Amino acid sequence: MSPSAEYKALSVETLPARLGGIDAITSGVGADPSQWSVQEVGDGNLNLVFIVSGPIGSVIVKQALPYVRLVGDSWPLPLYRAYYEYHALTRQAARAPGSVPSVLHFDEDQALIVMEFLQPHVILRRKLINGERVEGLAAFLGEFCARTAFRGSELSMASADKKSDVSLFAGNVEIPAITEALVFTDPYYDAEMNNHTKGLEPVVSALRGDVPLKVKVQQMLQSFASNTETMVHGDLHSGSIMSTPSSSRIIDPEFVQYGPMGFDIGMLCANFLMAYFSQPAHRGADAETYQGWILSVIEETCAVFEAEFRRLWASERTGMLYPAALFEDQGQDSVPACDAVLAGIWRDAWCVCGIEMHRRCLSLAHNADFEEIGDMTVRARLEARNLMLGADLIRMCDNLSGAGAVCDMARDFNGRDFL
Amino acid sequence: MSPSAEYKALSVETLPARLGGIDAITSGVGADPSQWSVQEVGDGNLNLVFIVSGPIGSVIVKQALPYVRLVGDSWPLPLYRAYYEYHALTRQAARAPGSVPSVLHFDEDQALIVMEFLQPHVILRRKLINGERVEGLAAFLGEFCARTAFRGSELSMASADKKSDVSLFAGNVEIPAITEALVFTDPYYDAEMNNHTKGLEPVVSALRGDVPLKVKVQQMLQSFASNTETMVHGDLHSGSIMSTPSSSRIIDPEFVQYGPMGFDIGMLCANFLMAYFSQPAHRGADAETYQGWILSVIEETCAVFEAEFRRLWASERTGMLYPAALFEDQGQDSVPACDAVLAGIWRDAWCVCGIEMHRRCLSLAHNADFEEIGDMTVRARLEARNLMLGADLIRMCDNLSGAGAVCDMARDFNGRDFL
Repeated sequence: MSPSAEYKALSVETLPARLGGIDAITSGVGADPSQWSVQEVGDGNLNLVFIVSGPIGSVIVKQALPYVRLVGDSWPLPLYRAYYEYHALTRQAARAPGSVPSVLHFDEDQALIVMEFLQPHVILRRKLINGERVEGLAAFLGEFCARTAFRGSELSMASADKKSDVSLFAGNVEIPAITEALVFTDPYYDAEMNNHTKGLEPVVSALRGDVPLKVKVQQMLQSFASNTETMVHGDLHSGSIMSTPSSSRIIDPEFVQYGPMGFDIGMLCANFLMAYFSQPAHRGADAETYQGWILSVIEETCAVFEAEFRRLWASERTGMLYPAALFEDQGQDSVPACDAVLAGIWRDAWCVCGIEMHRRCLSLAHNADFEEIGDMTVRARLEARNLMLGADLIRMCDNLSGAGAVCDMARDFNGRDFL
Repeated sequence: MSPSAEYKALSVETLPARLGGIDAITSGVGADPSQWSVQEVGDGNLNLVFIVSGPIGSVIVKQALPYVRLVGDSWPLPLYRAYYEYHALTRQAARAPGSVPSVLHFDEDQALIVMEFLQPHVILRRKLINGERVEGLAAFLGEFCARTAFRGSELSMASADKKSDVSLFAGNVEIPAITEALVFTDPYYDAEMNNHTKGLEPVVSALRGDVPLKVKVQQMLQSFASNTETMVHGDLHSGSIMSTPSSSRIIDPEFVQYGPMGFDIGMLCANFLMAYFSQPAHRGADAETYQGWILSVIEETCAVFEAEFRRLWASERTGMLYPAALFEDQGQDSVPACDAVLAGIWRDAWCVCGIEMHRRCLSLAHNADFEEIGDMTVRARLEARNLMLGADLIRMCDNLSGAGAVCDMARDFNGRDFL
């Protein structure tokens, strides 16, 4: 899909004149655009992001770019992803109130969303690299994942509404295709855009030679591409979370799609585990205490997810799945059904978790937790721990007893040398 | 959705005048509508079906009705299902050539499809009740199920095309909702429209009291409603198959949706198993030989399905799933991946099979195999065998070794008395 004829990328210079007539901005920033100050703050990979400030306050203007900057103009990406991001934000706001920035204005032709400016929020990945704690983080994340998973599924939604949503989001083709390729497939062969730290070769070739492992990964891809259980954020890593010392928000749901209920929390846990494994390079001898905090966030996030999911099961099960008519109304407990659904969620989550741990070291898009480690020997040693744990999580995803067991494995792998 | 203002149900009297100007009909029947003879042949539950004959030949005219006749005008059903049936027929014709009647004309406003008249085909269910054999039946059905399953999935299709199809068929809401309620849920509680043969009460209450069984059934519903692996026929029972003594076609795909790859073959096997269990009432002492033939059709259908699926895996795996880059191109065999996919298909198939065996004796829509048994004591005894085997298939669907094992179980249950 080409940009519409009307589409024009904003710039710091043109923004006030072009957006000065939009009430949602003037009422948040100030009526006179000549008094606005505009700053571009995006990493510019996929989008332009501006902070627009004035006498009343500040807003964020996010505009999609028609290509991926990371690899130049050669990778076009449809602007309609802003449309899906807008629809995702409104649904997340309804399903998990307070978890995402408020949308103030949406312009489909310009692929732009005006939204609440989060201050003094900082990208969580940066805080993790810096060794900073965030109060209430696990409760916030566990609740967000449980509420969006449950309330976007036919455990809660009327089937007609859910099917109509599936139909809507099935139009978001190119963006999920990035996940399908970069996350699930490229890490496991010598794909053109791959890169990995020098020294990891023995681990990489062990993974690529492991047929049963690759079968499990591709089964998860089959599920990711087919299983429309709920609306997932689709890219829920620590770069999609902004936090103050005591509050957090989820941003950037442009990879939204209907997918498996365990997808978001699995990808999230992977990013905490990578933060965990990278810490010795950032903190040195002091790493251990902060690493302990990271693992406690994983355990608590999963515990809160499970508790919140069970609470919603008991109080909001209004969809066609597992109806009370089959259980409670016959004087039978539906807890075994909830147990079975949760078992499926965790199986998918740990499999996705392991895959995400792989792709962030082997495929195109690495993360700063490891990339900012200058000493390649150290980086490779830490990444090897991460890759090997990822493989075990994929292999064992059907049989893991829970986040506690995963954290125990992480502690074990943190002391081992695989190179 | 209400019928469009233009929609008008056809009748034997009005059909020639209303359709006399359509080339696709005149070229198949004859140019002068006054020479046509029109006969209504549908069972009229959901549709009007006319045979239109003339000097050149005959065609079928099928028109959707805006309600379900079975329960009177009180159950409205959207006419747009004809639109989905039309799109299903064209896809099935492309994916499994020769398996469905050719479409000659489609009129969306009138919800009508003009198609090839199948002659001397008879509904397969009637042949099974009569004890007639159909040559080549298993090969035809196994190939149809394997080809539509494989070629409608991302094992074969480009992801963008498949997602666009998922989006299209997600609009077919009310018809799959019938399956969701009548097949997966109603049998397991005292739903208003249910009925079952007097005498079955002990078996019925055992099933409804079995929480682990109901959990498995609802997990299958969750998968049916969410897992858009491929385009399924959605209602592939012996009443949706027409046969001569040596050839067959599949009809009536209005329950089409994207669903699990094992759905169609599972429902199909259930209907053969019900034909099997009902035979003692139709053939008396001679039943055994014909029952043996029915089981051989099940075994061969499943064997052909598996062989054809493996052939397509090796020769037509052009989609994004399990790409050659991960297996063959690395000098590794992809057979373990195909084994894993097939294991998932059979698990779903046997679970669906058991559920279909239940709903045809407990929910609204029963089948003639049992319904035409006049002696209620005999009917209940035979249905009890069917219900009990269905329950075991659901319970054991993860661990069944194949169709041979299922047929062995059927032979065993055929000699047992559960009431």
